[in-house]
Amino acid sequence: MSDSTAVKPAGQTILASTIAKQYIAEVENGVKELGRSPTLVGFLANEDPAARMYADWTGKTSESLGFKYELRVVDKEELEEAIIDANNDDSVDGIMVYFPVFGNRQDQYLQQVVSLEKDVEGLNHKYIQNMYHNTRFLDAEEKQKSILPCTPLAIVKILEYLGAYNTILPYGNRLYGKQVVVVNRSEIVGRPLAALLANDGATVYSVDLDGIQRFTRGEGIKLTRHKVEDVDMTLEEVTKNADVIVTGVPSPSYKFPKELVKEGAICVNFSSEKNFNPDIKERAALYVPMTGKVTIAMLLRNLLRLVQNKAGRIAATN
Amino acid sequence: MSDSTAVKPAGQTILASTIAKQYIAEVENGVKELGRSPTLVGFLANEDPAARMYADWTGKTSESLGFKYELRVVDKEELEEAIIDANNDDSVDGIMVYFPVFGNRQDQYLQQVVSLEKDVEGLNHKYIQNMYHNTRFLDAEEKQKSILPCTPLAIVKILEYLGAYNTILPYGNRLYGKQVVVVNRSEIVGRPLAALLANDGATVYSVDLDGIQRFTRGEGIKLTRHKVEDVDMTLEEVTKNADVIVTGVPSPSYKFPKELVKEGAICVNFSSEKNFNPDIKERAALYVPMTGKVTIAMLLRNLLRLVQNKAGRIAATN
Repeated sequence: MSDSTAVKPAGQTILASTIAKQYIAEVENGVKELGRSPTLVGFLANEDPAARMYADWTGKTSESLGFKYELRVVDKEELEEAIIDANNDDSVDGIMVYFPVFGNRQDQYLQQVVSLEKDVEGLNHKYIQNMYHNTRFLDAEEKQKSILPCTPLAIVKILEYLGAYNTILPYGNRLYGKQVVVVNRSEIVGRPLAALLANDGATVYSVDLDGIQRFTRGEGIKLTRHKVEDVDMTLEEVTKNADVIVTGVPSPSYKFPKELVKEGAICVNFSSEKNFNPDIKERAALYVPMTGKVTIAMLLRNLLRLVQNKAGRIAATN
Repeated sequence: MSDSTAVKPAGQTILASTIAKQYIAEVENGVKELGRSPTLVGFLANEDPAARMYADWTGKTSESLGFKYELRVVDKEELEEAIIDANNDDSVDGIMVYFPVFGNRQDQYLQQVVSLEKDVEGLNHKYIQNMYHNTRFLDAEEKQKSILPCTPLAIVKILEYLGAYNTILPYGNRLYGKQVVVVNRSEIVGRPLAALLANDGATVYSVDLDGIQRFTRGEGIKLTRHKVEDVDMTLEEVTKNADVIVTGVPSPSYKFPKELVKEGAICVNFSSEKNFNPDIKERAALYVPMTGKVTIAMLLRNLLRLVQNKAGRIAATN
């Protein structure tokens, strides 16, 4: 009935800060119930202004929720020893490192130096391996919770908020029938995310420069983990039926092609660069341009879990 | 007095097979003393003919020294589960994976799936971290030996054989005064090697595409690990006084420039490509064109250590 012939954006932008609210409240209550202020230590060993901003932002959020936060700025060559000191310091509850430090595989080495018990980012090999295998606890007695890597977890929570998970379906199968494209297959976000979504029932196409892989939960009730296959399909083929598109390409020039997006799809970008142009809303029903605030909420939620694990260990030895 | 005006090679080629002999004998005796044949399982999940050759070669050497060897050829998507099965199988003593599998960081994830107790390559994060910190045992009681990554260890043994280590000097300081250039700073060979040599007293220049770093033991008797600094020097400047040059550039076109090599230097190449032209002997006093046979000897030596650790753990719980 409109006399305008211009195509108007139909979709809606949902901000991470809106989605984060319920988790922020949950964490704040958790700290109150705890009756003490756990300490998070962040390590900054680069000159990257984006990392410094993220550090300041984590600091502010942590303190506003009742945590203690300490930013330790160290030389990159001193970082390993500094992490080990924090590992050994009983007054430190959680540790995070603002990467990149060296910008190469040495960063993965450093990440593993952070002790399992204090790794709020959930990037310790043991946490990642447990995630791939749907193993929820660290111990056979199921007292110590295994945490999840915070960025993939944040994206799962965002997709829950956006209604991609159908709550009528049984838990663990709530993405059944959904098709998801994830453009990024890094070891710290893209690959774990594809696995998490596949474990919830989705068919996930994981896209990177090497090609496209399909992650599914596979068949058979005994399957303990998702199944991965290389597929000989184009981006267009995997995208045209995609209900959800998640991007994480760290390049200012990369833009996901709007014309490939199905009408009414959900688009989420976790890169610090804008991987979608704003006109994506001409196609997408729901668009989340950044995810950082939910990631920080998950990080602090992980910290609470680690503090609970610690209390459990102390109780067990007394 | 020669009437020839052509420059003749002055240096000598030393083959890895010659250097490996004493270690092969040591391992063979170790297996005899053990009174049983430990089992090594190798996983091949790629089509790379070089990897297949290396697998066959490890198999032959293992069996000739009294070990049992089993090559398991699996699909790359099945590899993780296959490794976990071998981790849980009491009849398997050691595990190795022929990389590359995916050729990206997922390979580092897979390497960490191999259990600490069976990782003959010494690439588990704990072994690498112990190496950087000169920590020789896994436990406070100093019963369980921490093993070393086998390629860097092989190069140390090669340099010992070639006389780069001065045995008159006290143990732990036998490279004192030596200058070493390592062209490769990978997390599995170049960087650990630079650290090992610096921990033995050398000044090591670690060269890669990102620039040059200097590894030294640093000053002060309390220093528990080497010190690393970025240096603003050229390859020519760091090479002209180098007593030892170690290369590991995985490219058929890369050749270390002969004219930079000091007369009488030691040149060792651990790449599967030939990083030196044969005329390097016009400058180098000693030249080792390949190191694989010493690496395999170290791998089997590590396997023996792991079996001894296992015996120690069983004895401790009985």
